[in-house]
Amino acid sequence: MNPVDILDYAGVALFAATGALAASRKQLDIIGFLFLGAVTGIGGGTLRDLVLGVPVFWVQQHLYLVVCAATAVLVNFTAHLLESRYRLLLWLDAVALAAYGVFGAYKGLLVTGSATVAIAMGMLTGTFGGILRDVLAREPSVLMRQEIYVAAALTGALAYVALRALDIGLPMAAGGAFLLALCVRGGALAFGWTLPAYRSHPGRAPEDLR
Amino acid sequence: MNPVDILDYAGVALFAATGALAASRKQLDIIGFLFLGAVTGIGGGTLRDLVLGVPVFWVQQHLYLVVCAATAVLVNFTAHLLESRYRLLLWLDAVALAAYGVFGAYKGLLVTGSATVAIAMGMLTGTFGGILRDVLAREPSVLMRQEIYVAAALTGALAYVALRALDIGLPMAAGGAFLLALCVRGGALAFGWTLPAYRSHPGRAPEDLR
Amino acid sequence: MNPVDILDYAGVALFAATGALAASRKQLDIIGFLFLGAVTGIGGGTLRDLVLGVPVFWVQQHLYLVVCAATAVLVNFTAHLLESRYRLLLWLDAVALAAYGVFGAYKGLLVTGSATVAIAMGMLTGTFGGILRDVLAREPSVLMRQEIYVAAALTGALAYVALRALDIGLPMAAGGAFLLALCVRGGALAFGWTLPAYRSHPGRAPEDLR
Repeated sequence: MNPVDILDYAGVALFAATGALAASRKQLDIIGFLFLGAVTGIGGGTLRDLVLGVPVFWVQQHLYLVVCAATAVLVNFTAHLLESRYRLLLWLDAVALAAYGVFGAYKGLLVTGSATVAIAMGMLTGTFGGILRDVLAREPSVLMRQEIYVAAALTGALAYVALRALDIGLPMAAGGAFLLALCVRGGALAFGWTLPAYRSHPGRAPEDLR
Repeated sequence: MNPVDILDYAGVALFAATGALAASRKQLDIIGFLFLGAVTGIGGGTLRDLVLGVPVFWVQQHLYLVVCAATAVLVNFTAHLLESRYRLLLWLDAVALAAYGVFGAYKGLLVTGSATVAIAMGMLTGTFGGILRDVLAREPSVLMRQEIYVAAALTGALAYVALRALDIGLPMAAGGAFLLALCVRGGALAFGWTLPAYRSHPGRAPEDLR
Repeated sequence: MNPVDILDYAGVALFAATGALAASRKQLDIIGFLFLGAVTGIGGGTLRDLVLGVPVFWVQQHLYLVVCAATAVLVNFTAHLLESRYRLLLWLDAVALAAYGVFGAYKGLLVTGSATVAIAMGMLTGTFGGILRDVLAREPSVLMRQEIYVAAALTGALAYVALRALDIGLPMAAGGAFLLALCVRGGALAFGWTLPAYRSHPGRAPEDLR
């Protein structure tokens, strides 16, 4: 396995684990674990491949589905042992986000050759699985949390594209960008790092505008 | 029409009817009926065709759109006669789920030849229309209900793939798998069948973890 | 630039502005502005191109991404000057809806030659960006508001297809259909135009059906 394949499988398995943890938080049955695990695990990559116009990865290679299913079953049997499933969910999501953000940029660059598209692809596909999970499981949205989230995927994608432009080898560029993205999101989780928020007041409800 | 074509059109029309019933519950205008009917009717099949990399069915054959529109108009003129729209919505959704779950598996197997992919495709496309409807219409999510839902689509897809692997003919395999899936979901609706839920406590809100 | 290219870029930029305004209402950071701006700006067109089976527009021409990013940054620096961001959001959304509804019909007709598909495509892609924005930002849904919304996109798409069928030239047909759609949605916003709503009672909650 080359280093980007590791990012790929790690992203799928970890996102699948976060989907299964969300299923556990909602007290779903085993099929709910499988469903949310599969959708979260393969969601980001499916969007990426559709947009890039390449065959969807899990249709080509069904091992990905097996990985999702095995992860969901494992979580089903172990989640009750955890003290805080939501905290673990956020940390696994952080590693998956970093992995998939870099892998999205790698595949975007490979297919289109455009740095702009590669960066957008890393940002979108690193975060899409988690967004899908939160919408489907009606979890609090990672997107709306104060701490840095999308920015970590963006950092990983930017770093990968920049390192490759500087002729750094693939393993070094992918590994370095992954670690950087993980530090950014991990720091946000551990220390509550935020970017300066938009400085104004929150929006009013539509009724109050009449 | 061969038996799988019947499943296809039945799934589209019935899902369209559930979308229109959701529009009625939200007291939308006729365009809301058309929109939710169309999105729910063609949503699952659109995802299926995109992921399989084949031309989207309703772009090839616009009769599907006509079916969705006619169904939405019909529901618009008759929904007020019903005593319980939500119960009818759930039952139509059950038939559509069974039909589309089997048809998804059929098309997945036809295009990819992989049993794993066919089963995942049946599970995803049998349930996607209903999920889309519930997210867009902000209805209570079928996915989060206690009774068996995704499991019925999965059962239909599994049964179809298994029967075909046993060299059962297409009409028998499709019809049998459809009836089995319908019994599973119908039993869940009629008798409240559930799978054992994940045995632990529900998740805490993120604020309580701090 | 020919007139339909103007509709295309205008739709992308204006939808991106509404996404950034939603980010402002939610007090997100600059990356939140970029993310919601990009997703809202390119969401409808991405769905359109995927369903039509043509290469996704922003993967072919990355200027669209630059337009989204520039718009999001501009909104980030100016949104606090506005008295009512939500009202501006609704008006920009109206122009974008009209532009993208007509452009969706134009592209649908160009690729498939089917009037039915072109009309459905205009309706779906004119409204999809806004729906995505509202789901992701957890804004009140434009789809569920009483005033005319989807009907405006549908009107623009219908008018474009009808005018083209009458052999009206492309600039006139596109411009006229755009203005008509804008009047319909603008009138709805300014004067509260509605279509007769479905005349029955709202749906009951599932618990009350037991």
